[in-house]
Amino acid sequence: MEKEKYDLAVIGCGPAGISAAVNARIRKKSVILLGGELCTPKLQKSPLVSNYLGLPEITGRDLREKFLEHARSLDIPIHQVKVESVNRSNGSGFSIKTEERAYISGALIIATGVTVNELLKGEREFIGKGVSYCATCDGPLFKDRDVAMVALTSEAVEEANYMAAFCRKIYFIGGSGQTGEGLNPGIEVIQNQEVKEIKGNDFVSAIQLDRRELPVEAVFIYRNTYLPDRLLDGLALKDNHVQVDHDYKTNITGVYAAGDCTGKPYQLAKAVGEGQVAALNASQYLDRLN
Amino acid sequence: MEKEKYDLAVIGCGPAGISAAVNARIRKKSVILLGGELCTPKLQKSPLVSNYLGLPEITGRDLREKFLEHARSLDIPIHQVKVESVNRSNGSGFSIKTEERAYISGALIIATGVTVNELLKGEREFIGKGVSYCATCDGPLFKDRDVAMVALTSEAVEEANYMAAFCRKIYFIGGSGQTGEGLNPGIEVIQNQEVKEIKGNDFVSAIQLDRRELPVEAVFIYRNTYLPDRLLDGLALKDNHVQVDHDYKTNITGVYAAGDCTGKPYQLAKAVGEGQVAALNASQYLDRLN
Repeated sequence: MEKEKYDLAVIGCGPAGISAAVNARIRKKSVILLGGELCTPKLQKSPLVSNYLGLPEITGRDLREKFLEHARSLDIPIHQVKVESVNRSNGSGFSIKTEERAYISGALIIATGVTVNELLKGEREFIGKGVSYCATCDGPLFKDRDVAMVALTSEAVEEANYMAAFCRKIYFIGGSGQTGEGLNPGIEVIQNQEVKEIKGNDFVSAIQLDRRELPVEAVFIYRNTYLPDRLLDGLALKDNHVQVDHDYKTNITGVYAAGDCTGKPYQLAKAVGEGQVAALNASQYLDRLN
Repeated sequence: MEKEKYDLAVIGCGPAGISAAVNARIRKKSVILLGGELCTPKLQKSPLVSNYLGLPEITGRDLREKFLEHARSLDIPIHQVKVESVNRSNGSGFSIKTEERAYISGALIIATGVTVNELLKGEREFIGKGVSYCATCDGPLFKDRDVAMVALTSEAVEEANYMAAFCRKIYFIGGSGQTGEGLNPGIEVIQNQEVKEIKGNDFVSAIQLDRRELPVEAVFIYRNTYLPDRLLDGLALKDNHVQVDHDYKTNITGVYAAGDCTGKPYQLAKAVGEGQVAALNASQYLDRLN
């Protein structure tokens, strides 16, 4: 797979990510914005934003459109992809793997928003011990085993069908309007039950729902947001957020973070401001490299 | 003098100050915005702002107008005053003295911008030892002495005339288009000479210009921006900026800071974001008081 090369890759296309991309572009850096299925659903759903200075009483939908239009006016490419992993590549820079494409960048800004409030009980504890976010990566480990798919986005259907070829039993737990349409026969669809807990000792042994407990050895979770420390090995967290210093630098050289993923308050102007600061510091970092 | 009472006083009406006021107002706090002669001359003079997300390619003048309009839409009063001093009042809260009025507030946000690059050589060293910013406050100390007025704003004329009644000799050093029109006869106007240094041993003894050295015992400086630690006794600085923590809290309980005065980069979106965070934290502080 041919790798696309950029000075800066921004993961996440919410207010922090778009602001970072705009500021780096104005500093003459080549920038790629890697977003999920839809950029900033949170803003999209906000009925009225009254505290973004200069644009009083605007709908979230209109403000989102203005933000994206700003990025488009600077010809910043936005790719709707799912980032699977980020690795430090040989020499300086980062190698970013997605299902669709691969990228290389000199610096990285993480602006992935928050999932903290959405984390399932037991989820973080069992990461790498039965909890996974990528069937292509980890699926084969569970050949002939029983697994559960927690589906909050539509990609879970394809992932479940892929797993169905070699797993013994698959439970498809649909949430957020995921009905499991298009699933292979034999996959058991469970709806209208909340996940209460992922259970186990050293490894996952079951998933507890409202009214059932399913014995499984793995839980694959599909949602719109990322756990940043899962993307990038060794990234330091603090209170479940990405740890940054005053320059919005993380503990990894060349990696910056901005917006909700760095901590509360989860607010628009804060995110936009942090995106700017992270981008200016990342640009200076890139200038020093050259 | 009757004191006006507010939950929150914001000193400085640049992007950080206006953003702070807007956010606190939305949180149902009563807010007063204390600005200088003109709110945010820096933005006013900016020919084109291209990196404030959502409003691409806008003139500084138009953006400034949008910011002020946002504040007006929330009925936030803006007073064009010169803050002389801030004191912790008995009980909780702050007492703010200006030439024109006096205020009491429960919390304070400092958003005074930067003067760092404009500081005169020797200025900080001799604060309280001959360097002053307020003739009404410190003028009488220099009865029958020779003093210099460094005039970067028009208020210096009135201040010099006030001092002329009791000082022996007054030099009016005009900068930034200050010609000294309206000065009492007897005051010596010096133009087109830069101030090189304020000199002295324990106290000011002279001011060095390009082509002259004037023997004076005091230098009164009039500019649009403040030295925050002069406003509020005991306010901690770090690298010439107001020291803040992650919540934009200063070392003084109830006092927050935002924008350029907290440090580089001196950027618009950063200032707006910090104003928001400072306001939210100040609002929470006020809620805890009640």
